Amino acid sequence: TELPRPYPNEIPHNEKLLSLKYESLDYDNSENQLFLEEERRINHAAFRTVEIKRWVICAMIGILTGLVACFIDIVVENLAGLKYRVVKDNIDKFTEKGGLSFSLLLWATLNAGVVMVGSVIVAFIEPVAAGSGIPQIKCYLNGVKIPHVVRLKTLVIKVCGVILSVVGGLAVGKEGPMIHSGAVIAAGISQGRSTSLKRDFKIFEYFRRDTEKRDFVSAGAAAGVSAAFGAPVGGVLFSLEEGASFWNQFLTWRIFFASMISTFTLNSVLSVYHGNAWDLSSPGLINFGRFDSEKMGYTIQEIPIFIFMGVVGGILGALFNALNYWLTMFRIRYIHRPCLQVIEAMLVAAVTAAVGFVMIYCSRDCQPIQGSSVAYPLQVGDAGELHLSPTWCACCLFCADGEYNSMATAFFNTPEKSVVNLFHDPPGSYNPMTLGMFTLMYFFLACWTYGLTVSAGVFIPSLLIGAAWGRLFGISLSYLTKGSIWADPGKYALMGAAAQLGGIVRMTLSLTVIMMEATGNVTYGFPIMLVLMTAKIVGDYFVEGLYDMHIQLQSVPFLHWEAPVTSHSLTAREVMSTPVTCLRRIERVGTVVDILSDTSSNHNGFPVVESNPNTTQVGLGLSAYPMLLLKDFRDAYPRFPPIQSIHVSQDERECMIDLSEFMNPSPYTVPQEASLPRVFKLFRALGLRHLVVVNNHNEVVGMVTRKDLARYRLGKEGLEELSLAQT
Amino acid sequence: TELPRPYPNEIPHNEKLLSLKYESLDYDNSENQLFLEEERRINHAAFRTVEIKRWVICAMIGILTGLVACFIDIVVENLAGLKYRVVKDNIDKFTEKGGLSFSLLLWATLNAGVVMVGSVIVAFIEPVAAGSGIPQIKCYLNGVKIPHVVRLKTLVIKVCGVILSVVGGLAVGKEGPMIHSGAVIAAGISQGRSTSLKRDFKIFEYFRRDTEKRDFVSAGAAAGVSAAFGAPVGGVLFSLEEGASFWNQFLTWRIFFASMISTFTLNSVLSVYHGNAWDLSSPGLINFGRFDSEKMGYTIQEIPIFIFMGVVGGILGALFNALNYWLTMFRIRYIHRPCLQVIEAMLVAAVTAAVGFVMIYCSRDCQPIQGSSVAYPLQVGDAGELHLSPTWCACCLFCADGEYNSMATAFFNTPEKSVVNLFHDPPGSYNPMTLGMFTLMYFFLACWTYGLTVSAGVFIPSLLIGAAWGRLFGISLSYLTKGSIWADPGKYALMGAAAQLGGIVRMTLSLTVIMMEATGNVTYGFPIMLVLMTAKIVGDYFVEGLYDMHIQLQSVPFLHWEAPVTSHSLTAREVMSTPVTCLRRIERVGTVVDILSDTSSNHNGFPVVESNPNTTQVGLGLSAYPMLLLKDFRDAYPRFPPIQSIHVSQDERECMIDLSEFMNPSPYTVPQEASLPRVFKLFRALGLRHLVVVNNHNEVVGMVTRKDLARYRLGKEGLEELSLAQT
Repeated sequence: TELPRPYPNEIPHNEKLLSLKYESLDYDNSENQLFLEEERRINHAAFRTVEIKRWVICAMIGILTGLVACFIDIVVENLAGLKYRVVKDNIDKFTEKGGLSFSLLLWATLNAGVVMVGSVIVAFIEPVAAGSGIPQIKCYLNGVKIPHVVRLKTLVIKVCGVILSVVGGLAVGKEGPMIHSGAVIAAGISQGRSTSLKRDFKIFEYFRRDTEKRDFVSAGAAAGVSAAFGAPVGGVLFSLEEGASFWNQFLTWRIFFASMISTFTLNSVLSVYHGNAWDLSSPGLINFGRFDSEKMGYTIQEIPIFIFMGVVGGILGALFNALNYWLTMFRIRYIHRPCLQVIEAMLVAAVTAAVGFVMIYCSRDCQPIQGSSVAYPLQVGDAGELHLSPTWCACCLFCADGEYNSMATAFFNTPEKSVVNLFHDPPGSYNPMTLGMFTLMYFFLACWTYGLTVSAGVFIPSLLIGAAWGRLFGISLSYLTKGSIWADPGKYALMGAAAQLGGIVRMTLSLTVIMMEATGNVTYGFPIMLVLMTAKIVGDYFVEGLYDMHIQLQSVPFLHWEAPVTSHSLTAREVMSTPVTCLRRIERVGTVVDILSDTSSNHNGFPVVESNPNTTQVGLGLSAYPMLLLKDFRDAYPRFPPIQSIHVSQDERECMIDLSEFMNPSPYTVPQEASLPRVFKLFRALGLRHLVVVNNHNEVVGMVTRKDLARYRLGKEGLEELSLAQT
Repeated sequence: TELPRPYPNEIPHNEKLLSLKYESLDYDNSENQLFLEEERRINHAAFRTVEIKRWVICAMIGILTGLVACFIDIVVENLAGLKYRVVKDNIDKFTEKGGLSFSLLLWATLNAGVVMVGSVIVAFIEPVAAGSGIPQIKCYLNGVKIPHVVRLKTLVIKVCGVILSVVGGLAVGKEGPMIHSGAVIAAGISQGRSTSLKRDFKIFEYFRRDTEKRDFVSAGAAAGVSAAFGAPVGGVLFSLEEGASFWNQFLTWRIFFASMISTFTLNSVLSVYHGNAWDLSSPGLINFGRFDSEKMGYTIQEIPIFIFMGVVGGILGALFNALNYWLTMFRIRYIHRPCLQVIEAMLVAAVTAAVGFVMIYCSRDCQPIQGSSVAYPLQVGDAGELHLSPTWCACCLFCADGEYNSMATAFFNTPEKSVVNLFHDPPGSYNPMTLGMFTLMYFFLACWTYGLTVSAGVFIPSLLIGAAWGRLFGISLSYLTKGSIWADPGKYALMGAAAQLGGIVRMTLSLTVIMMEATGNVTYGFPIMLVLMTAKIVGDYFVEGLYDMHIQLQSVPFLHWEAPVTSHSLTAREVMSTPVTCLRRIERVGTVVDILSDTSSNHNGFPVVESNPNTTQVGLGLSAYPMLLLKDFRDAYPRFPPIQSIHVSQDERECMIDLSEFMNPSPYTVPQEASLPRVFKLFRALGLRHLVVVNNHNEVVGMVTRKDLARYRLGKEGLEELSLAQT
């Protein structure tokens, strides 16, 4: 076969992908001719302006993300207060008459109703807003775009959905979705327009390309983590751990700036809202509360205990993930219609309410409100006035005056508050039986809830499960060691929470730092690191992390950090796609249209090759087609019109078009002998979408795309090949 | 000219560099044929063993770095105590007789003597141990190796040197050098042998290559930061900010592990040493002490004040750097002989002692030891018994009973303690005049000291200068606002310290996190970030950061994060070195020897090209030369014998050698039209040492080396070309 030669080039953007499920992003398009010409034209001063704009955008991302977090927090607080008041009034009214089952029914119905609304908007308006959004953002930063993932509409649905899920009493948190919200805000602001609103502010046009947008989305995700946990450094590390393969000092510094602004905005606004302006006491949506390092240090002897807790967390996390995997498979097979999804969500809401109610009723774990512990039950609802009274009373449910129901404390509160209570309530506040039952029930409820068609996060439920069994563990330890002072249940609750969350999500450095920042001191850094490390090692032995599992279930061509270790014997020749559809530099319009319309091609960037010098160049006459400018690409970015929408007449088809303008004149290439790890490294480090494989004579012999690389995976028995979705 | 073609290859290691000043490291040699064959042979289980070894090495790096830090701390404490006792005895004896000048003489002589020893060992035994070592480690992580920088001998001299400089009373810190120490420890352990000791333990042979060694050195540097400041996260970020261009989750996690182990080891050992085992209260060599966030929060109104302090820090930092630049130029020109260097160091030591003595005598800033402030002067020497009494008495120098001399507090203590005192002493402990004089004197002393031929760091002196003027600023503010409660001088001392250090070293994210971790809480994160950002922006307007300045003064081909922004119009053709010396795959030994011996070549990796297919291949008969194995390369790494040391007979010269074994069969290449930023990105992201430039026919037309890229720099008037040292 005759091979085209030399040099292989790419058309900057291809429109065919739009009708498909995923889109590969191109983080290396800065060298396309149009961009390159602009870069060459603009001078030093102009670059400085661009740099200043980047900082301004990051500040705006931080401020808006912080404000969105405040909005969610305040609305949830008020709606939850309202709901609790209604239920409480009814319980008060009906308990006297013995109509407890009616109260239960009302509670369950109310929750199911709220969740129904939350589920309907997600299922019917924007399904991509379901879940925490973390897997989607991981994919985006990795280079795979799921359609609609960074649209304004998604943000609106996400925010409303989270509020409704939390108010609906599901076993969910509002923290995870902040990451997605921050990312959408970043994508919107950095592009200076919104497709959902059909508004183009004609600003920040320089940033309308995949690379720049990705950088801002990283900043948005970091700002989201920062607002959620009051963890600006953790946010930066999250973005880097999940996304950026090429570390750049300036970029990281900007991401950190956005993170800091975000937590600062949240802190300021919530301080003002809670009436103690300027005291800056609410750095995140959840704050683990003050661990007094002097009172609650740890000793070297405890380290093996922490490691054991990590093992438990890893096993429980793996169990959680395995159960969720089967559930997700079931959902993919049977619950794919929106109506069914809404019904399932309502069912879960009703069951959650019923389980809580029954557990509170049956456990009757009444603890006296003693002098020492009085501060804590009062703290339960101290977030706002509305919230205070109903929760406080709920905690007295079915108990005598002067006592509170500790099961109710765990079930009735928002999960955030329950976590903090488990960390800080003094020893003796919880009955071991209560904690055991609660752990068991909440584990299954949280597992069932993750993957529902509602917007919600898994961070807080995981922490809560872990805090519950961790505290139980601490109590047992205290019992075994005859109440030694070092066996503080709160400390073990913290370690349990870390172990459980680590066992489920398998994050490493970023999670350690997030936990450190959320506890507000660095003393527990070392044990938290050990716990997370153990949980990850143990968990990885059984199944993947929850997010990776969901990414793989959707067969997204996700590139991990390194090529599988045993893949050195594979070469580019073996992994590449062939044959390659090439274009000539001067090409007939009809040919270009036909190639772009052909959906059967296995790659979507086309090498532009120069004809062999000894064949005669035919048809140099160029069409008088109006020139496409960089502006046109920017205006259309990222949704280019599909080729089918463009009518090309027969006359136009016969014209010739010069592709030099739209191609990258110096694409990266590899020889066909290059090993898979080498190709992989090039792809990952430079953020490529296509890589051209050439032979010794610089003739195009194949193309490596993301899918070609992503399908190799290290399984239990060595190298495996996966089947991936269409890209 | 006829061009060789196709494919261009490199010989894995070249020996010519050894006689030159710097060595470029190759972070992309994993594909050389010998390595590749090994990688292909070893299976999944073997890779797992390698991975476990990596973790073991990181743990060892952490433990040893922590122990070295402990050693430095304990020895300094004891020697300083001894010295102070001698001086104090003399002052007590002679003050009565009026022989104060004799005391001064004794003090100055003692200091000069101690510094002389410290300077002699550095100047005569291992000059690369001078300074903090941070610029050298930055270079190493960037890919340029300064000879001897990671040898055991360097570590020994460094540790002894630091101890002697600190004991000698110079305006230096022992924290910065920990980074270098950690790096040496890492390099030594990961290679499983020591050249200085001539011992090869025959372990960890897999890691004997530049890439692996670099990763461990990153971990060592992080462990050093961690031990110095009790800042494990800051350590990781320092390593990443200064070194790693390709972020890898597993690598980062291992670096974090080493950091955590390091601070934990230091903490445990020092706790035991100080007699309160298991309380883990000394996470770093310096700890900024507990800032009570409830008492010492900040309000939004203070933010403009902090930004102003950042501006001041930036200007003072730039002034410091500019003065130090002139001083360094002077030193390069006139003080290059070791004897002169030792004499200068002694002079500085004597002057420092004299200035301190005179200032204490003249200022007579006697503060009453009141009830409220009594806790603090007592804390001055609480680190050890030996230290306690002399310092305590020194602080009473020239004051009545029941009073202490606040100038003596600032001058007599170790700089670490002075910094902490400035942060935490209650308002009114210092006279503004004292602080002003101290700032002025210490600024010039520290500036004069940096660059001396002694091992010492600039972190702590910078913090001290900043803390002094920051406190002065806080006192003024308090005076202006009529003693408002928010104007706590300690808080402003902290911000001043951050501003001054940021203005001098211009680190960003990592420094923010280090400061956050050293203060032990996250409340001040936002203002510290703003201060550092402002200081950097203002400082960068005038001159470069101190470390970058010293790197540039030595004309090291250092690659920054990105190519200069205005370099898009330059192409590979314009920056590459030509002509290229190529080798054939089957080459005559004599030719290889001649090429390797030729020091005039402008590159040190040689493309191996295949002869044109239409020329006849001559001399296929291979020599029966004993095969070189991967083991031989590993045993020699990193100091390969120079070609001059190998005797090649005339007969041997006529033999043919097959280079396939030693070359990289699929090197990265770029077309000559590729722009400079593109080439730069490839170099930086993949850690290359050479990049081959080819034409459309895949024929070698040039080579791009680190030096070709490093010489382009963005100056005030646009793109500049630098002259660089031989590499």
